[in-house]
Amino acid sequence: MNLRDEALQMHKAKKGKLSTESKVPVRNAKDLSLAYSPGVAEPCKVIHDRKETVYDYTMKGNMVAVVSDGSAVLGLGNIGPEAALPVMEGKSVLFKSFAGVDSFPICLDTHDVEEIVRTVKLMEPTFGGVNLEDIAAPNCFIIEDRLKKETNIPIFHDDQHGTAIVTVAGLINALKLVGKSFSEIKVVANGAGAAGIAIIRLLYNFGVRNMIMCDTRGAIFEGRTYGMNEVKDRVAEFTNIDKQEGSLDEVIEDADVFIGVSVGGALTKEMVGKMNRDPIIFAMANPDPEIMPDDAKEAGAKVIGTGRSDFPNQVNNVLAFPGIFRGALDVRATRINEKMKVAAAQAIASLIDENELTADYVIPAPFDARVAPAVAASVAKTAMESGVARIQVDPEDIAEKTKQLSQIKE
Amino acid sequence: MNLRDEALQMHKAKKGKLSTESKVPVRNAKDLSLAYSPGVAEPCKVIHDRKETVYDYTMKGNMVAVVSDGSAVLGLGNIGPEAALPVMEGKSVLFKSFAGVDSFPICLDTHDVEEIVRTVKLMEPTFGGVNLEDIAAPNCFIIEDRLKKETNIPIFHDDQHGTAIVTVAGLINALKLVGKSFSEIKVVANGAGAAGIAIIRLLYNFGVRNMIMCDTRGAIFEGRTYGMNEVKDRVAEFTNIDKQEGSLDEVIEDADVFIGVSVGGALTKEMVGKMNRDPIIFAMANPDPEIMPDDAKEAGAKVIGTGRSDFPNQVNNVLAFPGIFRGALDVRATRINEKMKVAAAQAIASLIDENELTADYVIPAPFDARVAPAVAASVAKTAMESGVARIQVDPEDIAEKTKQLSQIKE
Repeated sequence: MNLRDEALQMHKAKKGKLSTESKVPVRNAKDLSLAYSPGVAEPCKVIHDRKETVYDYTMKGNMVAVVSDGSAVLGLGNIGPEAALPVMEGKSVLFKSFAGVDSFPICLDTHDVEEIVRTVKLMEPTFGGVNLEDIAAPNCFIIEDRLKKETNIPIFHDDQHGTAIVTVAGLINALKLVGKSFSEIKVVANGAGAAGIAIIRLLYNFGVRNMIMCDTRGAIFEGRTYGMNEVKDRVAEFTNIDKQEGSLDEVIEDADVFIGVSVGGALTKEMVGKMNRDPIIFAMANPDPEIMPDDAKEAGAKVIGTGRSDFPNQVNNVLAFPGIFRGALDVRATRINEKMKVAAAQAIASLIDENELTADYVIPAPFDARVAPAVAASVAKTAMESGVARIQVDPEDIAEKTKQLSQIKE
Repeated sequence: MNLRDEALQMHKAKKGKLSTESKVPVRNAKDLSLAYSPGVAEPCKVIHDRKETVYDYTMKGNMVAVVSDGSAVLGLGNIGPEAALPVMEGKSVLFKSFAGVDSFPICLDTHDVEEIVRTVKLMEPTFGGVNLEDIAAPNCFIIEDRLKKETNIPIFHDDQHGTAIVTVAGLINALKLVGKSFSEIKVVANGAGAAGIAIIRLLYNFGVRNMIMCDTRGAIFEGRTYGMNEVKDRVAEFTNIDKQEGSLDEVIEDADVFIGVSVGGALTKEMVGKMNRDPIIFAMANPDPEIMPDDAKEAGAKVIGTGRSDFPNQVNNVLAFPGIFRGALDVRATRINEKMKVAAAQAIASLIDENELTADYVIPAPFDARVAPAVAASVAKTAMESGVARIQVDPEDIAEKTKQLSQIKE
């Protein structure tokens, strides 16, 4: 049986992938009196007196909402909330399997920013964090910004930040290999969607100042009069300082790094040939990368990453989001700030020792059991240091706990 | 350790009572490709083509939202959404333990009817049904009515209908004992809250025509000028045909059945003395019943039920809601209609054979393992017969499945 049929059959046989389970037995009157009436009144009263104890007595502290409106699902586009549900259940499965994070899919029957924001805010009492998923740009940016301002729990749009963190983790190691630093490189990113913009923002936080982002109309620059929007305006503020015009083919010249979050085939061998010495290529379009790894290599690329599991250096978000939420939840963080994202990227990169670093191994494998514990500990530590943690916990304890909870044992 | 401390300690040690679990393993790249990208795209595409297949490929068909705004929690009142969470988790635990129904607590940070209705509607893609819980009257009536009209999944306010179904189940058997029929009895209900109103409505569906409902101002009747609201206006339309005025003490005269959903001590021995021969008393105020069973018995009551586990004939909703949702979900019902509620009450009552029927045994025990399977099968059968089922399933298969899924084995 091929993969498609097998996947379809598995989803049907199991009737979805997620269930809810009781952590306590209810087999007799005594059990019932503890889990429900009258015993349950006690935690209710304590929480009513001191709202923050909801983290002590309920599931909230380990529960993430996976929220989508089904508007940009995988490569399938706007397929709606019902059809998005298998992906969101899958996300919840990964949260649990990789880091013991409970989560629940909420697929919303609206694309209205105001309604999505309001709904998530209304559900805040139930959840310790929110993972936004597969929401189309530019709504995803607006929704995330609004929720970050208007809630007191971590809000994380994984399509943006998960991808950005893993890409930058790979880049940290790739730069070591070619002996370049963030402050001196020129980065060209193709694709001005959610992931692309998050990547260049995170690169800015790593000190990159020479960046050009391209969309289908070519380089984005301040004052461009065509094909702009609010988000691209902001991108133009901190990239392309020389206000260079032109196509990808033109602005790629002398670039050290290509970041592709666009479409298959967007990068040619000729373009790679125009890049600076030892080009680094992250060609993450799925399923067909911007350039196939073999072609990139032939054209002189030194390090190549893709979104695919059948090539080296897979940029897979699963390296980031489970550990990030594990760490954020365990210190009851009020947000996931930029420093925590930087820390996550560094934690992922640091798992590959310099002596084992090769062009084909700049990113750990998705099933590397060390990743989630390292990310969780590092994110928690940074949350505490940057003042967004409600409680203090030893990061080593968090790493150990994550290791215990994770079902990844390789 | 007393029950209160034990309950508090248990909630803290477990950090709440509910978790989410994966039904599929994710331990290697193959697992990942089936549960997530790229395999997950297949069910997404099928659902996008035919929306109703969401029941085949996702958790929706076994997933109930337990929705509350925390405005009327247990006897604690309006304690807010965070403090309500332990109760909603408890409800989810019971759904799972008694009938294998997955469910998830959604505690909403608003008391606005329009916002609650809108939020539940937006979440409809994710859930196969909605259990409204601990929402204060009259909002609970308006929200339920609106959602029943505006969604295509079962909407069930358990505080109303769960209580009503179990009460009426007890009454079916109590009437057998005293040799009276629904059509000839006079019922007086004290307390015009959610449960009281649902009980008299269900009794109407069982053929009772002589009913008087009292609130704190006495008997409710058509044209009463004080303390009325929209819901009481509707109650007045089908009860108290003679438009009798007066206090409970006055209208209780010659009543065959007293239904108490009010406050402890509301019914005196003198009042019981004024009732018709073989009075039936359901005194369900918690923790202190309207009259203590011993007092009621002394005053001549024949059958007495309460909400307490330490007296015979406990009216416990857990006899109803797990099986009702099990049956509704298994035939993918679009609603839980009046006929299904009647069927549930009859199924519960029928578990006690006439030869084992006594004044102390008119309602099965909460942990009677026969209840949920019987209710599920009966509700599913009635859903199919009344045209609200999306699929046809053999009720016996549903009973057997419920038995397998239930953790109650006594």
